[in-house]
Amino acid sequence: MTQDEARAKLEECRVQIDDIDRRIVELVNERTRVVEEIGRVKREAQLPIYEPKREEQVFANITASNRGPIPADCVRRIFERIIDEMRTIQRRKIVPHPEDPQC
Amino acid sequence: MTQDEARAKLEECRVQIDDIDRRIVELVNERTRVVEEIGRVKREAQLPIYEPKREEQVFANITASNRGPIPADCVRRIFERIIDEMRTIQRRKIVPHPEDPQC
Repeated sequence: MTQDEARAKLEECRVQIDDIDRRIVELVNERTRVVEEIGRVKREAQLPIYEPKREEQVFANITASNRGPIPADCVRRIFERIIDEMRTIQRRKIVPHPEDPQC
Repeated sequence: MTQDEARAKLEECRVQIDDIDRRIVELVNERTRVVEEIGRVKREAQLPIYEPKREEQVFANITASNRGPIPADCVRRIFERIIDEMRTIQRRKIVPHPEDPQC
């Protein structure tokens, strides 16, 4: 493979990555909307916000559905970050912290 | 809303979250496969693995496609984690570090 051929192939791969990323952004927003709904329901019914057991179910679900090639540890760390960001959003809906950064 | 009604609604939301998460896992695996292909092409053509400019393009793409409600900072941090995990996977394909953890 020449360097020119390689560059053309890389460009093709990057178009694919950008498309995948846009779909991930859409799904993360869809997840945020459901998490916001959960927050509203919990506030209304005065149920506890933080449920560590539910978090374990989330990890069990992603691990079970992972067919690879991404290793289980990597996908778990990605979801730890997603859950962490969602928790921050949900918490701010209840007690606003004006001194906190944007999300 | 009674606590029973709230619990039924939460259950419904969790089914939705689990479905969204499985789709995210699938996309993250699709992304990993393309990143692996990029790694193969770069090795074959002896092109540099790390390209900070490309990373900025990735962030520009996700920021432009984000319609919310997730704030820009949050989605950026999620993608920082995704990219970080992919970089680890890609690096290990070139120089294996047997002492490193699984991914």
